[in-house]
Amino acid sequence: MNTVALLSRDTLLLAQLQDAFARRAPHLSAVLAEDPQAVQAQVAACWFPLPGSLGALPNLQVIHSVAAGIDHLAHDPSCPELPVCRVVDPGHRQGMTEYVRWAVIHFHRGFDRVLGHQADRHWERPPQCPANRFRVGVMGLGSLGSAIAQDLAGAGYDVRGWARSAKALPGVQTFAGAGAFDPFLDGVELLVNLLPLTAETRGILNRRTFERLADGAALVNVGRGAHLNADDLQQALASGKLRGALLDVFEREPLPADHPLWTTPGVTVTPHMASAASHDCIAEQIAENVRRLNAGEPLLNSADRLLGY
Amino acid sequence: MNTVALLSRDTLLLAQLQDAFARRAPHLSAVLAEDPQAVQAQVAACWFPLPGSLGALPNLQVIHSVAAGIDHLAHDPSCPELPVCRVVDPGHRQGMTEYVRWAVIHFHRGFDRVLGHQADRHWERPPQCPANRFRVGVMGLGSLGSAIAQDLAGAGYDVRGWARSAKALPGVQTFAGAGAFDPFLDGVELLVNLLPLTAETRGILNRRTFERLADGAALVNVGRGAHLNADDLQQALASGKLRGALLDVFEREPLPADHPLWTTPGVTVTPHMASAASHDCIAEQIAENVRRLNAGEPLLNSADRLLGY
Ligand SMILES: NC(=O)c1ccc[n+]([C@@H]2O[C@H](COP(=O)([O-])OP(=O)(O)OC[C@H]3O[C@@H](n4cnc5c(N)ncnc54)[C@H](OP(=O)(O)O)[C@@H]3O)[C@@H](O)[C@H]2O)c1
Ligand SMILES: NC(=O)c1ccc[n+]([C@@H]2O[C@H](COP(=O)([O-])OP(=O)(O)OC[C@H]3O[C@@H](n4cnc5c(N)ncnc54)[C@H](OP(=O)(O)O)[C@@H]3O)[C@@H](O)[C@H]2O)c1
Repeated sequence: MNTVALLSRDTLLLAQLQDAFARRAPHLSAVLAEDPQAVQAQVAACWFPLPGSLGALPNLQVIHSVAAGIDHLAHDPSCPELPVCRVVDPGHRQGMTEYVRWAVIHFHRGFDRVLGHQADRHWERPPQCPANRFRVGVMGLGSLGSAIAQDLAGAGYDVRGWARSAKALPGVQTFAGAGAFDPFLDGVELLVNLLPLTAETRGILNRRTFERLADGAALVNVGRGAHLNADDLQQALASGKLRGALLDVFEREPLPADHPLWTTPGVTVTPHMASAASHDCIAEQIAENVRRLNAGEPLLNSADRLLGY
Repeated sequence: MNTVALLSRDTLLLAQLQDAFARRAPHLSAVLAEDPQAVQAQVAACWFPLPGSLGALPNLQVIHSVAAGIDHLAHDPSCPELPVCRVVDPGHRQGMTEYVRWAVIHFHRGFDRVLGHQADRHWERPPQCPANRFRVGVMGLGSLGSAIAQDLAGAGYDVRGWARSAKALPGVQTFAGAGAFDPFLDGVELLVNLLPLTAETRGILNRRTFERLADGAALVNVGRGAHLNADDLQQALASGKLRGALLDVFEREPLPADHPLWTTPGVTVTPHMASAASHDCIAEQIAENVRRLNAGEPLLNSADRLLGY
């Protein structure tokens, strides 16, 4: 019987994943770090593994993120140099599409302004423009970003996207590589970040980036908290360069109650809810990779540790 | 030269319409009620015409609403018994689709709850369910309602719609007539009102209606203010039967600053912004109907005064 070690600082998630493995992959033994059987694990399924937990498992062959990103593995410095995989759930894509569509309409149609008026009982129609004159820029055109860009193009928005490599997406103007970042940002009224967190992308949502956007633009961060320079955001909001920001991810989650972002005018905080792979899907995809490991077949959704995604 | 009389209590709108006629239909003379030429008008273009203004025009042959609804004509009791037309703008449909899509995701994904948590700096993921397990009911399947129902079905929601006559819309479960109203409401988690205001539909958003919905359902009123019984809404919110309401239309607009709906917990007020026909489109469609009138051809988008829409 194959063993999967479940590693996370999130104990609720651990219990939910154990249930999901029992339901969807009962032929596997899914155990927690403190279980004596854990040392036999060939695969670790991780979300923010505790420091030292990966290094304590001598038989690991694959490290599996239970999410789309692999950046959280760095939380455990004992993480060995092994192949890394992630989970890619179609439901993931649907959830993210909903979240970003809400965000785009929110700023495009001025719901942000209208909600702000209610406390003052102030009736004022926000300025309106047709969707094809509202420019949305999507950073990252991977599994999620490409789906989002196409969804927004289908809804009639003026959509552009940026990735490391060249892409062809119907209805989306695409830009590739660091050299194309500035032209990509030109005139963008809503910037959506769907990059993975890597050495190259850390802190990319900063003053330089904001300055290239249209005046009064808005920001949606659904990548990772460390993409954002929060001080630069606060300055851009205070100066009016940016008109609002919808933030779903933070360097520390839950966002601490004393964090200034909770009360920065123009900032809306959501609790890392944009999308999550379902627990069943996580168990199924990891079980499939265990099967492939045993059969010597190539693993699904493997990530490049050097690139960081 | 044909004359169109522009009649409204909204003086800003009158000026905007005059500009639009000058741009898009310069062969017509578009005049205000106080212009001596107004008595020659064959067509009146109206949005809440002032009482007595229609009766003062002896040469009218057609009364044209500049909006989708014709209910506002009743604002002028002198309105003669003439054919009535309305404006149907494709941009109208796009604007309404955006507004309702925002509203559906807002309640489906729990943005209403999350926004409410920010003041308390409270981090809590709202309960999530896939779109196909979230039931949306659309009241009215005309030009706007049918487009909205299909948009939501395309986004994966469990969509049902209700109209006077039977309809076939792909992906939408349809209900027809007063007798099917109760079954239509069963288990609906989000009710969207897109009915015209008529004798039959006035006050239809009332306690009886709310009681048939799923517990904790939400309401979106983008029809007319008089569809809603505001007292019943407040009771349903207070009891928890309804969890929220997004209201775009009111019996008096702008909603008076001392109106209790501004501050009712769970109510979000938007300033009749869901969609508006563009001024250019209004001028073009009315000009086309003037041409048809002169040529003796059937008019576009005529409404049934007896039915009220
Ligand atoms: N908020 C949430 O609930 C939530 C949920 C899921 C995921 N996420 C975040 O979303 C991220 C993206 O997920 P995904 O599944 O779409 O990832 P993915 O499939 O790995 O795609 C990553 C995209 O980013 C591009 N990229 C990476 N480094 C870049 C760089 N230096 N410059 C320009 N482009 C670069 C890649 O370009 P190439 O295509 O050229 O390689 C690719 O298009 C995840 O890493 C995670 O952080 C958040
Ligand atoms: N908030 C805003 O910004 C905004 C903007 C535009 C319009 N509106 C409102 O939206 C309304 C609908 O616009 P529309 O262009 O879609 O109107 P429409 O094309 O005239 O459609 C009206 C729909 O309501 C149904 N209906 C009418 N009376 C009914 C009854 N007693 N029982 C059941 N169904 C009934 C009709 O059924 P049948 O198909 O069987 O005739 C039809 O499907 C307008 O009247 C206006 O009040 C609001």
